[in-house]
Amino acid sequence: MVFSRMKKRVAIDMDEVMADPYEKLIRLYEEEYGIPIDQSKLPGHYLQDIVHPDHRSSIRRYLFAKDFFEDLVVMPNSQEVMREMHEHYEIFIVTAAMEFPDSLGPKYRWLERYFPFIHWSHYVFCGDKSIVQADFLVDDHAKNLVNFSGEPLLFSSPHNAYETRFTRLNNWQEVAQYFLSDV
Amino acid sequence: MVFSRMKKRVAIDMDEVMADPYEKLIRLYEEEYGIPIDQSKLPGHYLQDIVHPDHRSSIRRYLFAKDFFEDLVVMPNSQEVMREMHEHYEIFIVTAAMEFPDSLGPKYRWLERYFPFIHWSHYVFCGDKSIVQADFLVDDHAKNLVNFSGEPLLFSSPHNAYETRFTRLNNWQEVAQYFLSDV
Repeated sequence: MVFSRMKKRVAIDMDEVMADPYEKLIRLYEEEYGIPIDQSKLPGHYLQDIVHPDHRSSIRRYLFAKDFFEDLVVMPNSQEVMREMHEHYEIFIVTAAMEFPDSLGPKYRWLERYFPFIHWSHYVFCGDKSIVQADFLVDDHAKNLVNFSGEPLLFSSPHNAYETRFTRLNNWQEVAQYFLSDV
Repeated sequence: MVFSRMKKRVAIDMDEVMADPYEKLIRLYEEEYGIPIDQSKLPGHYLQDIVHPDHRSSIRRYLFAKDFFEDLVVMPNSQEVMREMHEHYEIFIVTAAMEFPDSLGPKYRWLERYFPFIHWSHYVFCGDKSIVQADFLVDDHAKNLVNFSGEPLLFSSPHNAYETRFTRLNNWQEVAQYFLSDV
């Protein structure tokens, strides 16, 4: 199997990298409470940290709903960039899906729908991502990057705004720049 | 996270190692066709290779049924041995679940039911297992073992009867002997 390993492996996280859960969480919250979320407070925080303390459990309730992950908005430019990366790298989608057991089916269908060029053999639904062996990991969570044995790359998300330990990629244009400039 | 890596990591395959799909496949086949399967023909073959060619697609149909993986029989001694291994090793369950998208929910529930001492953060549902980084991999499929970077261990299953490239563990007593003799 030497041939298949000639391409470098890139593991890519799903939520907040390929899929946008914030957009849906904010929409559901504003629909339920009629209170606009002050997004200027988001940097360095999770959504549940900036809503009224009595409403925190609602964010969790939205996330655990059966269909939450079924129809998340695709992150801008992620499809085009990944399609091109797929030509030059071996791409694995690595998502901590186990935290939300009901997300397994929805995540599978979402990937098939929006990223049909990635074969299901390259989906990884896991919990602890330190099990993953790849050359690069693009992820918004520092906890997933600290124990990674390859090159860790932090994809910007509001909650990681003040994280400084990793090379940061702010959006998919920057992902393209990082991976596709020299190919 | 040095502490958590002091225990060696063992990745363990699910089907034909922890769970017994053969028992159910054979039962469903014999129920449908009323023809007993000649299990003496199994060594070196998959079930679909030894049934009447006209019936091959039925095996596939059973495997792809929504509830197939929900109620598989637990492999003898796997619970006791894994419970003890769990004290001395970091155990990950690594299953090529993506081939059967409907198996994701059933497999999750099956693991929770029969192996509650393994936390969901240590479930890995994937396709291509070469993404897995661990010290040992116990698996019945040579194709999963050939590219593994740690110590590959072949768990005996009828189809791998003539496979000679790996250290073979015939059953869970032998798994216990391998992993628990020196701890």
